[in-house]
Amino acid sequence: MGDANNCFHCPVPISRYAEVLMAHGGGGKLTRDLVEGLFIPAFGRPGAGPLHDGARLDLPAGRIVFTTDAYVVQPLFFPGGDIGSLAVNGTVNDLAMCGARPSSLSAAFILEEGLPMKTLARTAASMAEAARAAGVAVVTGDTKVVDRGKGDGIFITTSGVGVADPGLRIGPAEVCAGDAVILSGDIGRHGIAVMASREGLAFESEVQSDCAPLVDPVFAMLDAGVEVHCLRDLTRGGLATVLVEIAAGAGLNVRIEEDAVPVTPAVRGACELLGLDPLYTANEGRFVVFVAPGAAEQAVQALRSCPASAGAARVGEVLAGPAGTATLGGRFGADRILDMLSGEQLPRIC
Amino acid sequence: MGDANNCFHCPVPISRYAEVLMAHGGGGKLTRDLVEGLFIPAFGRPGAGPLHDGARLDLPAGRIVFTTDAYVVQPLFFPGGDIGSLAVNGTVNDLAMCGARPSSLSAAFILEEGLPMKTLARTAASMAEAARAAGVAVVTGDTKVVDRGKGDGIFITTSGVGVADPGLRIGPAEVCAGDAVILSGDIGRHGIAVMASREGLAFESEVQSDCAPLVDPVFAMLDAGVEVHCLRDLTRGGLATVLVEIAAGAGLNVRIEEDAVPVTPAVRGACELLGLDPLYTANEGRFVVFVAPGAAEQAVQALRSCPASAGAARVGEVLAGPAGTATLGGRFGADRILDMLSGEQLPRIC
Repeated sequence: MGDANNCFHCPVPISRYAEVLMAHGGGGKLTRDLVEGLFIPAFGRPGAGPLHDGARLDLPAGRIVFTTDAYVVQPLFFPGGDIGSLAVNGTVNDLAMCGARPSSLSAAFILEEGLPMKTLARTAASMAEAARAAGVAVVTGDTKVVDRGKGDGIFITTSGVGVADPGLRIGPAEVCAGDAVILSGDIGRHGIAVMASREGLAFESEVQSDCAPLVDPVFAMLDAGVEVHCLRDLTRGGLATVLVEIAAGAGLNVRIEEDAVPVTPAVRGACELLGLDPLYTANEGRFVVFVAPGAAEQAVQALRSCPASAGAARVGEVLAGPAGTATLGGRFGADRILDMLSGEQLPRIC
Repeated sequence: MGDANNCFHCPVPISRYAEVLMAHGGGGKLTRDLVEGLFIPAFGRPGAGPLHDGARLDLPAGRIVFTTDAYVVQPLFFPGGDIGSLAVNGTVNDLAMCGARPSSLSAAFILEEGLPMKTLARTAASMAEAARAAGVAVVTGDTKVVDRGKGDGIFITTSGVGVADPGLRIGPAEVCAGDAVILSGDIGRHGIAVMASREGLAFESEVQSDCAPLVDPVFAMLDAGVEVHCLRDLTRGGLATVLVEIAAGAGLNVRIEEDAVPVTPAVRGACELLGLDPLYTANEGRFVVFVAPGAAEQAVQALRSCPASAGAARVGEVLAGPAGTATLGGRFGADRILDMLSGEQLPRIC
């Protein structure tokens, strides 16, 4: 993996082109220029030999986990992150949520003709930096270019391969009545950061996206021997949507207490102003974990030992019923049944 | 894997929506409707349990190969294929070119708001059919929706995981002077089919894309014990670009004879009319293979036993020099040095 900053000063004449041209996606000379002049300086060259159609992986023993996500966030850059760091962390986190240690990523770019080459270089540098931080390599990729007005700057699809302990059983079906529900930190920052950036809103204190890799928090628990039943990162639909999905998958009731859910004053204020509910606001560096009742304290301690989950807190528990529902215990004793996100709160948030 | 046609008659009320809405990419109820109502009926549900963030793969022993490609072809449907079959076959073929037997695909969709739901269903059905034909499963996916005018109907990124014999050494660095160069069939059909369809051109006889999975042809050779040194599918840059790339990677001269390269009269006529060179015209179901000199006849026989490579022919050989070049031996004794595709012959061909 080369120094990510290289792509701003690379010796290959990528600078001949201030903008992305259709031919950069044509598979010929300009595609080769882009790969040799921008992507390889950022991501490094997998193996030593000439480029081929795919990457050969040397993986440790275990069970392979495979996942993919497309990223279409607007704007491309926002406080606390950008489409590049998002594209790495989002896919890394999907692997971590399966209990897998991320190994390798692929990156496919769909670029709009006329995109400033500097924007692409900055994005690739951010991806490389995020990959390094998460301990993964970007090993294979592809670039296509679409005509002006048929795309929106940059879309990135990353796929990830990781390796999990074959004995691990993690998923909604493993959740049991009595399980403790733990949240890794305060919610809603990613959604508010992107929204504020998109709409040019200035709040009293700038809200930074929570975008972060969650590998360390997950393995802090697994390595400590915490009996983890289910992991799920909070993304587009927010905490509420995830709890409803897991309750439905488990056929149980997931109950959280409103007062226990950390929300910063800045996010709470922004949500009130914008008419949003923090429970449905997007996150990119937060997750919930369901653990055996006796393991809750150990799980919280393990999480708090990692910077990305220093604000972890127990927020609720799993009950037998009503089956397939999620309940929010309110401040004044009033319960509220949570529903999945309906409609579209914040389009193109990731 | 369910019956692909299910997605046209599925019980889930996907038909409530004649068009794709922004909320279908929002991660809430409508995203769930789309997954349960359209994608799972087409691709089947990986494993038996509830959906989780990634797919767990049970792979045979061997070396993992990992690849990705984005597909932005226009029009979405063309004679002999569509963006769905292309997105499956293109990625399957990249795995096959590494000597890997394809196992699992991921599929990430970037949809434009307002896309007719029937178009998406038809595309998913085509992907499912192509996956079945290639012997792979679509095991994980993602859907994002972008605003009208910020996309172009459907973009699909597929990634693939396959397994190769760890002892196989296939790639440009393995090519030796004296190797035979074999082409799996006639060239240029995909490019002409898409071009004709896009521009509304009617030729005397309709040209069908060659879009096809190349797993059987590759393993027909490998299973027969053919000493294969390099495999490469011909895509965006055509045969000429691939030969230049391999010559550069090998540091040798790749020489082909113009008369030996099969081109159908329909493709030749269309190329003449449009001012295109069949050597630079795109293909999606053709490849070149470099084999040890004594293995050429056996390789051609193995290829001809498969429908997708029934027209295989030996087209040239590898010489020591001039190093890093590809040469076309012409009809009248005049040689021509081939260059990589320069500029953009046919944008958005795959």
